[in-house]
Amino acid sequence: HLDLHHYLLLSTESSNIRIYYCFRNIMKELQENFKKLLKTERVPVFLTSSGTGAMEASIVNFFKPEEDVLIVVGGKFGERFFKIAKRFGLNPICYEIEWGDYPKVEKIEKYLKENKNIKGVFIQICETSTGTFYPYKEIGEVCKKYDALLIADGITAVGVYNIEFDRSNIDILITGSQKALMTPPGVSAIIWNEKAHKRLGVNKRYKYYFDLEQEYKNQKEKFQTAYTPSVNLYAALNEALKVINKIGIEKIEKNTSIMSKATLKAFEEINLKPLSKNPAIGVSAICLPDSIDGNKLIKFIRENFNMYIAGGQGHLKGKIFRLCHFGYIDIFDTLNQISAVEFALNNLGYNFDLGKATKKAIEVISQYKGA
Amino acid sequence: HLDLHHYLLLSTESSNIRIYYCFRNIMKELQENFKKLLKTERVPVFLTSSGTGAMEASIVNFFKPEEDVLIVVGGKFGERFFKIAKRFGLNPICYEIEWGDYPKVEKIEKYLKENKNIKGVFIQICETSTGTFYPYKEIGEVCKKYDALLIADGITAVGVYNIEFDRSNIDILITGSQKALMTPPGVSAIIWNEKAHKRLGVNKRYKYYFDLEQEYKNQKEKFQTAYTPSVNLYAALNEALKVINKIGIEKIEKNTSIMSKATLKAFEEINLKPLSKNPAIGVSAICLPDSIDGNKLIKFIRENFNMYIAGGQGHLKGKIFRLCHFGYIDIFDTLNQISAVEFALNNLGYNFDLGKATKKAIEVISQYKGA
Repeated sequence: HLDLHHYLLLSTESSNIRIYYCFRNIMKELQENFKKLLKTERVPVFLTSSGTGAMEASIVNFFKPEEDVLIVVGGKFGERFFKIAKRFGLNPICYEIEWGDYPKVEKIEKYLKENKNIKGVFIQICETSTGTFYPYKEIGEVCKKYDALLIADGITAVGVYNIEFDRSNIDILITGSQKALMTPPGVSAIIWNEKAHKRLGVNKRYKYYFDLEQEYKNQKEKFQTAYTPSVNLYAALNEALKVINKIGIEKIEKNTSIMSKATLKAFEEINLKPLSKNPAIGVSAICLPDSIDGNKLIKFIRENFNMYIAGGQGHLKGKIFRLCHFGYIDIFDTLNQISAVEFALNNLGYNFDLGKATKKAIEVISQYKGA
Repeated sequence: HLDLHHYLLLSTESSNIRIYYCFRNIMKELQENFKKLLKTERVPVFLTSSGTGAMEASIVNFFKPEEDVLIVVGGKFGERFFKIAKRFGLNPICYEIEWGDYPKVEKIEKYLKENKNIKGVFIQICETSTGTFYPYKEIGEVCKKYDALLIADGITAVGVYNIEFDRSNIDILITGSQKALMTPPGVSAIIWNEKAHKRLGVNKRYKYYFDLEQEYKNQKEKFQTAYTPSVNLYAALNEALKVINKIGIEKIEKNTSIMSKATLKAFEEINLKPLSKNPAIGVSAICLPDSIDGNKLIKFIRENFNMYIAGGQGHLKGKIFRLCHFGYIDIFDTLNQISAVEFALNNLGYNFDLGKATKKAIEVISQYKGA
């Protein structure tokens, strides 16, 4: 367990003005490591905020009030984009899909064809609340065709998928420090291409802390942020990116997909289906039968094994559970998560052959990793 | 020097979902410790942002476009309030004072008398760029009389001065983690009284990440933030507040004022005057003669002593230097800062009796602390 004195150790150092002088070097490295991960030459901007701050930044900097944007709403994070756009006076058109479903490229093309004023399309790469992967590359092609920007929330996708930004058709990509990037929460990042850059500053009002024009200029040219950054977290993110780049995102993506496959097959084996029609590899959302209360399942696992798995959000609360496969999670954590769910299901009266799911996961993993 | 592995230690722990469960307890304690420091029963809101984020929050939540506000601009941070207000469509009236001067209560009363539509008055308690204390209590009395809110930036005042919030006449108070609160940057705080609370939500648009209605509800009732907080920094701030409250803010204020007095007297002794007409105790800004380049002074101190002192901002760059007396700084740090400046002045050709300033500081300190 974490020693709280570590916090104060960090404090003494960073509250000192000397951080001002070494911060530039941290920022230089951080930019390079982030660019390496995304295989891009574009300079990212880092913000002292959670991912939601970067979501807001993507709206207030590249769009202005009254403009039409298309927002895919298929879960909690799509909803969030929609709410932000509303608050900032945009005219968001909602492409609502059932939670667990994914946006259809043809449907997006139809929206863009019928409304030539749509300036941007907002999607998640992975909608975390439902564990669903959205086909961002194909959507990006359509956006290009109709000259709309594609804004992708990659908060649980960057560091999971090998997103080659410059070849991805994504115009604006967002991420946060605390998911696959294995850093404490509190830093978000946003990167955009030349096409998006032309619209940067289209809105002169209703932004100050999240003014990307100012941040881009400061960070690109001076390796400084416009306002005091969370220096410790920037340094931590830089260190984490070094680790990730050393392993290589291709290998990470492959390992993550094995854990995802193993998890989905494991639960199918005991008749539990994934919520998602197009599962993301980073997060698996599994449906529970009506007889099992998901909140109880999570509580049982927490109290008995000191293990923390995620439940459903919004109307899915109590109806699903979600397992994470990114970041520090390895194949043994994955097996442990599956076993823990098995123990809990057994305790809550679900009728199945205890151990069967974990056994199946082991078999799937061995196919890819060797026996 | 800080071991970077500490960062990753922190990372592994917090990226785990288990933080979700212990975070509530951290938040409960953090609220109590912050309330204790400010001797208030009001519940503060913490934001994952630098202090500038909280400045923005104070504008977008309590005021709406087109409304008149009075902003005291006597340094970099007053300017910042003005810029934010402009960006969000308010009608800010600028009470501009010379950098180093402080706002006059009579002048503020005049503004309020002549413009009955002024809904709020924005000030710094300490304008950090000039080391100036603004008479917030007296200004608050006038604001009360004319029914305008007083918004005080306490970023370098909270943890320095014994601000008894409920008796202070401040309606909205802002601070940040990284100054006197001795925590890494990345958390800001905002607290407001019942009177300000009635105006919370007067503006429904142009805020999402900094929506204080939502944060207040979440943090007060559920001890959770609306979006993922920088959990490590919240925990660090909580630990730092425990230390501060154990010492007691009265004692801290007294010690800080001794260091301030000693510093000002020391430099007066060698004919260097403070910039400020009303010096704040937390930061001393000292004017340099035209013959001395402040940038060179700071560089000399950094390169020769690995000590970091602050220079001037804006048009004062190169013309002043600033010494900090809050947070981890003790009387010996203060003496060291003064000596370092003496060495640098000597090196840069300033004609004075080397050692005289430090000697004077020692004498002043001994008057208060005993021989």
